[in-house]
Amino acid sequence: MEAERGTRAARPTVPPPGPAAAAEPVAQRFASTWASLADVGRDRRSGGYRRFAWTPADLELREWFTDQAAQRGMATEQDRNGNLWAWWGGPADGAVVTGSHLDSVPDGGAYDGPLGVVSGFLAVDQLRARGVVPDRPIAVVSFSDEEGARFGVACIGSQLLTGALEPDRARGLRDVDGTTLADAMRRSGADPAALGRDDEALARIGTFVELHVEQGQALVQCDQPVGLATGIWPHGRWHYRFTGEANHAGTTRLVDRRDPMLPFASTVLSARRLAEELGAVATFGKVLVAPNGTNAIPSRVDAWLDGRAPDDGTVADLVARITEAAERDAASHGTTVEMTPESYAPVVEFDQRLRERIRTVLGDVPALPTGAGHDAGVLSSRVPSAMLFVRNPTGISHSPDEHAPEADCVAGAEALAAVLADLSCR
Amino acid sequence: MEAERGTRAARPTVPPPGPAAAAEPVAQRFASTWASLADVGRDRRSGGYRRFAWTPADLELREWFTDQAAQRGMATEQDRNGNLWAWWGGPADGAVVTGSHLDSVPDGGAYDGPLGVVSGFLAVDQLRARGVVPDRPIAVVSFSDEEGARFGVACIGSQLLTGALEPDRARGLRDVDGTTLADAMRRSGADPAALGRDDEALARIGTFVELHVEQGQALVQCDQPVGLATGIWPHGRWHYRFTGEANHAGTTRLVDRRDPMLPFASTVLSARRLAEELGAVATFGKVLVAPNGTNAIPSRVDAWLDGRAPDDGTVADLVARITEAAERDAASHGTTVEMTPESYAPVVEFDQRLRERIRTVLGDVPALPTGAGHDAGVLSSRVPSAMLFVRNPTGISHSPDEHAPEADCVAGAEALAAVLADLSCR
Repeated sequence: MEAERGTRAARPTVPPPGPAAAAEPVAQRFASTWASLADVGRDRRSGGYRRFAWTPADLELREWFTDQAAQRGMATEQDRNGNLWAWWGGPADGAVVTGSHLDSVPDGGAYDGPLGVVSGFLAVDQLRARGVVPDRPIAVVSFSDEEGARFGVACIGSQLLTGALEPDRARGLRDVDGTTLADAMRRSGADPAALGRDDEALARIGTFVELHVEQGQALVQCDQPVGLATGIWPHGRWHYRFTGEANHAGTTRLVDRRDPMLPFASTVLSARRLAEELGAVATFGKVLVAPNGTNAIPSRVDAWLDGRAPDDGTVADLVARITEAAERDAASHGTTVEMTPESYAPVVEFDQRLRERIRTVLGDVPALPTGAGHDAGVLSSRVPSAMLFVRNPTGISHSPDEHAPEADCVAGAEALAAVLADLSCR
Repeated sequence: MEAERGTRAARPTVPPPGPAAAAEPVAQRFASTWASLADVGRDRRSGGYRRFAWTPADLELREWFTDQAAQRGMATEQDRNGNLWAWWGGPADGAVVTGSHLDSVPDGGAYDGPLGVVSGFLAVDQLRARGVVPDRPIAVVSFSDEEGARFGVACIGSQLLTGALEPDRARGLRDVDGTTLADAMRRSGADPAALGRDDEALARIGTFVELHVEQGQALVQCDQPVGLATGIWPHGRWHYRFTGEANHAGTTRLVDRRDPMLPFASTVLSARRLAEELGAVATFGKVLVAPNGTNAIPSRVDAWLDGRAPDDGTVADLVARITEAAERDAASHGTTVEMTPESYAPVVEFDQRLRERIRTVLGDVPALPTGAGHDAGVLSSRVPSAMLFVRNPTGISHSPDEHAPEADCVAGAEALAAVLADLSCR
């Protein structure tokens, strides 16, 4: 990608492999590295992960990252926005960067995020084992709070880095307990005052390649372990607050009620109908009811819409029509609804030249679009970015049942290593 | 009520008024006693109360009760089922018992429960100030966990006392964090092994009179501060668990989804329609979504139906038809639903003779039925029981906005004192 990103700092000399550069086979190394992550932030009841930003689980994941880097003699840093970097050579401008994120949705699977970080480290191991000496530095990155599970906005770390998210807005985001992101960072020993667009860190990224478990079954259908992303559907989150009046469930006549559960229920059904009609997807996956007592009519129902479609116009249409239906239903029950857009990521088409170059390395791997947002999508507005997908037999994701076979994970790490080798050498 | 309940123990001599028997006016005493409760378990954000069984707030309320009794020289005891008793004379069989509960729904009002306990203490003060010497003991009681906000079953303390709730079932009830009632009691220094029907404690209740804030506007309509209950609508709680499959909100096609939010939403609307049709009330006030992430299709929606109607047959019909609709909707979305009845209180008609006797004391106060469950309803199956209601200007209850004017609260305490004086004297 030399032609596309200038090397603004002096090209550093890449040092020889660190002490732990592995001679063991990738499969074995994958299994042991993967196992070292298995227990962090795992919920015993669901079997899924609850790895939320700036919680003890997150701090444990950050230690894990630093430890993995140290085992490989890679220098680590946490940037101003809480993203972690491990350097083979550098830090310096124009590096080849790979990685993903370590946080999860509530009761998320093991692969969404961590597979990209682990594969980054394994790719470094493989390049070293093969004796590759890159011409420019290679970095493995773990972006902070990609899922947005705690503060409601996705890709916080990469969005702050590129300037897509205003630092003041980020600092003021609150979790369900009312804790702000700023306070959560402070309690974790990080400095929220430093948040914001980081052109220095951005300049270091010559190319970004994110490996991720597939969140659908396209690779199953074409019987391939690894695929290449073409782009990302536009997507966003919209918060609907239905407000009524708390009252006694036994003594309040139906005609006297202002029950916000009723327009919420109608809106769920409207969203599904409109998504079908428009060829989009719409999901109400997060709902908070107040006061949430069996014998109390709710005073409030907060619900979050996740909406996506192949193009920006369709998403806008979807949300406008769902909101219109919600307002009509809220009024008919003597309640109100207020809609607040929380985040929006426009359509992404990954860098054409980078995709072609990766195809020359990997051959004719399947090309697929995705409905899921990723840090690579955020970065693509500023640096040439690409994504590799690893086959997911059931397509299930954001669930404890998410899975990728070990052989496919190994194939993914090997493909990533080949891509990094190509991109990092003249 | 002498004729209706034998005095199985020797009639005790009621001691003279304790040290704090008040000479101050009831209004002043009401204000200071009420103020001493105002901060306990209050949620700063909502302004409502979160007084749940066997939590620190509950223990603080129990201390408050003991302190109030001590100020009046009344002996206190916590019975085997966690109910608190304060005795003026006794404990002995055939007493005149008044009281209510101190716990609350989530973000509940100040009056629902506490008004009955406070009025009980104030009535004792007034009798003493007037020099009344009762012929049988008077007790003020605070029943444990009336609202069922934590463990999902209402009137736990009175239901255990009368044998309506099996102690094994009670011990195994779990809160949302998975803590059992047994563990919660143990952590609060109480012994769950002792739970169960308590005929000794029951024999002590010759008559029970519960004073409660009205949870509707009947007294507003007839312009009276105090009313007398005729009976309680049958009511119950039913748990619906909609189970689907967690998956990614962006990458899962609509046709591949098994989203339990959709049949839940349909069921909310079916319940409202059927309640209208049958002249009943139906409420979904409590909902828990798993994993509850914006970008995850839920794996599960747990929702609790509160259903009530004038007669038992209508409630049964209501629940059967809601369940039928839920099953049909669940199947149509590739999901399942499982319904578990959690509690049921059949129709209550309060003791006719006791109501007549109270009318001879209070005159022609309005007689009203209620849709709300109460400990008096539970006790009415075993001892003659009655309820007084105090006017509620807005009718709002189970809400931080619940309110009763001080003058009406004082009128309520005075009416209660008159009733207790009559019932406790030959």
